[in-house]
Amino acid sequence: MAITVALTTDIGEGFGRWELADDAALLDVVSSANIACGFHGGDPDIMRRTCDLAARNGVAVGAQFSYRDLAGFGRRYIAVSRETLTNDLLYQIGALDAFARAAGTRVSYTRAHGALYNVAATNEDHAAAIVEATRLWNPELPVLAQAGTATWKHAERAGIPVIAEAFVDRAYTSDGLLLSRDQPGALLGDADEAAARAVRIATQGELTAVNGETVRVTGRALLVHCDTPGALEIATRTRQALLDAGVRIVPLPELLNS
Amino acid sequence: MAITVALTTDIGEGFGRWELADDAALLDVVSSANIACGFHGGDPDIMRRTCDLAARNGVAVGAQFSYRDLAGFGRRYIAVSRETLTNDLLYQIGALDAFARAAGTRVSYTRAHGALYNVAATNEDHAAAIVEATRLWNPELPVLAQAGTATWKHAERAGIPVIAEAFVDRAYTSDGLLLSRDQPGALLGDADEAAARAVRIATQGELTAVNGETVRVTGRALLVHCDTPGALEIATRTRQALLDAGVRIVPLPELLNS
Amino acid sequence: MAITVALTTDIGEGFGRWELADDAALLDVVSSANIACGFHGGDPDIMRRTCDLAARNGVAVGAQFSYRDLAGFGRRYIAVSRETLTNDLLYQIGALDAFARAAGTRVSYTRAHGALYNVAATNEDHAAAIVEATRLWNPELPVLAQAGTATWKHAERAGIPVIAEAFVDRAYTSDGLLLSRDQPGALLGDADEAAARAVRIATQGELTAVNGETVRVTGRALLVHCDTPGALEIATRTRQALLDAGVRIVPLPELLNS
Amino acid sequence: MAITVALTTDIGEGFGRWELADDAALLDVVSSANIACGFHGGDPDIMRRTCDLAARNGVAVGAQFSYRDLAGFGRRYIAVSRETLTNDLLYQIGALDAFARAAGTRVSYTRAHGALYNVAATNEDHAAAIVEATRLWNPELPVLAQAGTATWKHAERAGIPVIAEAFVDRAYTSDGLLLSRDQPGALLGDADEAAARAVRIATQGELTAVNGETVRVTGRALLVHCDTPGALEIATRTRQALLDAGVRIVPLPELLNS
Repeated sequence: MAITVALTTDIGEGFGRWELADDAALLDVVSSANIACGFHGGDPDIMRRTCDLAARNGVAVGAQFSYRDLAGFGRRYIAVSRETLTNDLLYQIGALDAFARAAGTRVSYTRAHGALYNVAATNEDHAAAIVEATRLWNPELPVLAQAGTATWKHAERAGIPVIAEAFVDRAYTSDGLLLSRDQPGALLGDADEAAARAVRIATQGELTAVNGETVRVTGRALLVHCDTPGALEIATRTRQALLDAGVRIVPLPELLNS
Repeated sequence: MAITVALTTDIGEGFGRWELADDAALLDVVSSANIACGFHGGDPDIMRRTCDLAARNGVAVGAQFSYRDLAGFGRRYIAVSRETLTNDLLYQIGALDAFARAAGTRVSYTRAHGALYNVAATNEDHAAAIVEATRLWNPELPVLAQAGTATWKHAERAGIPVIAEAFVDRAYTSDGLLLSRDQPGALLGDADEAAARAVRIATQGELTAVNGETVRVTGRALLVHCDTPGALEIATRTRQALLDAGVRIVPLPELLNS
Repeated sequence: MAITVALTTDIGEGFGRWELADDAALLDVVSSANIACGFHGGDPDIMRRTCDLAARNGVAVGAQFSYRDLAGFGRRYIAVSRETLTNDLLYQIGALDAFARAAGTRVSYTRAHGALYNVAATNEDHAAAIVEATRLWNPELPVLAQAGTATWKHAERAGIPVIAEAFVDRAYTSDGLLLSRDQPGALLGDADEAAARAVRIATQGELTAVNGETVRVTGRALLVHCDTPGALEIATRTRQALLDAGVRIVPLPELLNS
Repeated sequence: MAITVALTTDIGEGFGRWELADDAALLDVVSSANIACGFHGGDPDIMRRTCDLAARNGVAVGAQFSYRDLAGFGRRYIAVSRETLTNDLLYQIGALDAFARAAGTRVSYTRAHGALYNVAATNEDHAAAIVEATRLWNPELPVLAQAGTATWKHAERAGIPVIAEAFVDRAYTSDGLLLSRDQPGALLGDADEAAARAVRIATQGELTAVNGETVRVTGRALLVHCDTPGALEIATRTRQALLDAGVRIVPLPELLNS
């Protein structure tokens, strides 16, 4: 039976007058869209347009929720309480779902953005908030997380689905963690290298860390960032390489049944 | 058969550290809550708490949506395009519905707040946006509007339900319009006067305008503001006076079937 | 004696993660920078960086203040009261001046952005607010305005300096007004055409309107937008053409003494 | 020679439609006003009004700057970089100074609000940002801090004045630190107890901690919170008790010369 993955990207991350990426082109390539919900980027017009495009292309709509931090693009830890964070995230899922519904689809998974994603790998309260917001919305929706993180464990404990995520265009340490964005080489700019990595993660469950070691990495949702240089090229090559390797690419919720 | 009305209030209009009204007490009195959605007031914590309280009390949850204007509390006209306004409003409905769902209920009607409510009485684009956002969400949900306004007409034309609204604690001109808030006497502070007015609107479809004339006013949703002095007293007396007059008070969506 | 003008651009209009223009390159070309103050664009980091660059290049720092409307980039009219608008604008001047001071210079003029600029051409309250905020800050600072507008008249009445502004890269109607941005041809994309227009305004006080008529236009501050396609090219050619025509280009405040 | 202190309060902490305290009454009692600058509370109208009142009463104007966190009222740590925080704070000082100038006075000291105040007691980067923003604005302005904190040390190292602050209405631990707001008894509600504590701090440099021990506390700026129950009563009694004890109460900058 074929290996099955979702190819995802963070998207809809402009705000008002400002744009970040060529969203339309990326939505031709990925199978699932992690759509910003207005707290770090994204505004109602962009969310509407992005959901419409995703629905038209058969791309699954995921809620990419964040700390409330437009000025910091959600890249700064905020010491918000578990309760408030849960409500902040639930607000964002609901808002995005309104546009998904208007486009004839629904929010079908969630994923934390930026600092929240990283913090919740180890912060129990914030991991719990991610899981609780998702569960309150719909306990059958999967949340994306790196395997083994606090988010992952909270999802398992709460009995909601969780999908392992890996990064196509980010460097990893030998512990299987992401190399911090402020380190040199943290972003992989070479499309062929990224594509090869995606295939290796999907088919062999491993990649080469910055120090040259081989690391085991589970990843059924393969993320390409939208705002790295050459993002579209990376996404396109990655897609083709996966298909060439016999990997099936499906909208994210279909991973639950395969 | 008994006359049936909904007794409503604007509610959940604090933000972060700031509170406006005794929300819990008011939710013991009204049958329907026009809940702020975060664009003029309200934040996720408040929305969660207000939806929980409403659900527990059998109070219907309505989306009180607004221009994006936290600094102006939604009381200033903004020349936003019809398209953007539609999306801004849809965003708010979706966000509130997430909390309604978490509380075991749903958003069951919509109402424009502040300047948007007043502007859309005559502004075709903004009236259309109110109706379109509601219809995109759920074409069976009623929108509240004063009879005869542009909002009213757009709702009729779009084929979505519209419920006539009247104000228990605001002065009217002889044209059947609200006296502007900056005019003296615009807010009725006397609870007995307000209660008597509510009964007269419900049972006779009329009230006395500021110039002493009798005006015909249709109102099946009777609104008490939460932030007027003595709001709780006004709401409580109004409720009792309606019941004493044999008027049935029901959650707003039930008006559609009665 | 040589004709003297200021060559200006709107600048520093990114926000957080988002950028709009090649600010550093433009600050090598213009003599005066209309710097966003955080209400439509611009954030403290950007304001600091932009003021530093301007000061280093001998470019005058102007406060490009706006309605409070980050989501709409200040391009939407907001029916804010004269008093509140005055305070909103004063806040922005003060904030920018902090960065100007840290860079060893000061805010030396003001200019309204976007919708406020256009609205205040005819809206007495908003024109008065622009002038009053500038005057409260420093009655010796000039405000930029098109000649004959309400802003212009209020400045004259209040006894504060006002400098006539003309647009190098925008089409004019035969009334000497700007063609609205949503009309075709509203933005001039051709650098040579823009440069020639700048010279003609500076030396002859006229330009050709969209209907082919010649219109009288006074302009001592010549504006190049930073976010039009080819902005840097337009600015560079305009500068050279002005110099070639014997026009002196000075930081804006020096126009008051020449 | 008489002991001299400043009696201060946090003030101007409403936003838009929302109010927190009876600012006008408090400004009749204190000698120095820590005025919110719009990032956790305060808006331009409120800042203008508060500066006007302060100036009229001979009350010194201090910039109470904060993390950018309106939704959290500045009470949540945000992991913002030192550079961005410096700029965020400088922005706030400049904005407030515009209103101070319009009122005929100037910002004459700074103080961090909420979480920033607490965090910067030990966080070197955030302490450095507080000091650097103040120094960039005016190296002669004092910053308020608890003696011995990181903020205190950075100010000393940078060579800017620093004034020791103590809290009239907050419980202390035996380490001389504030008992966290979420602990029972953290806020002193009794006006006479608060007043007696203020006198004891001013005249003997000590107070009684929650565990009954006597703690040495240096405090020349004595803070009364504006949003505790009975704030006005506490401030009024404290003022009277200090005067009765022969303590002079002066606007904060005068402490530098006494």
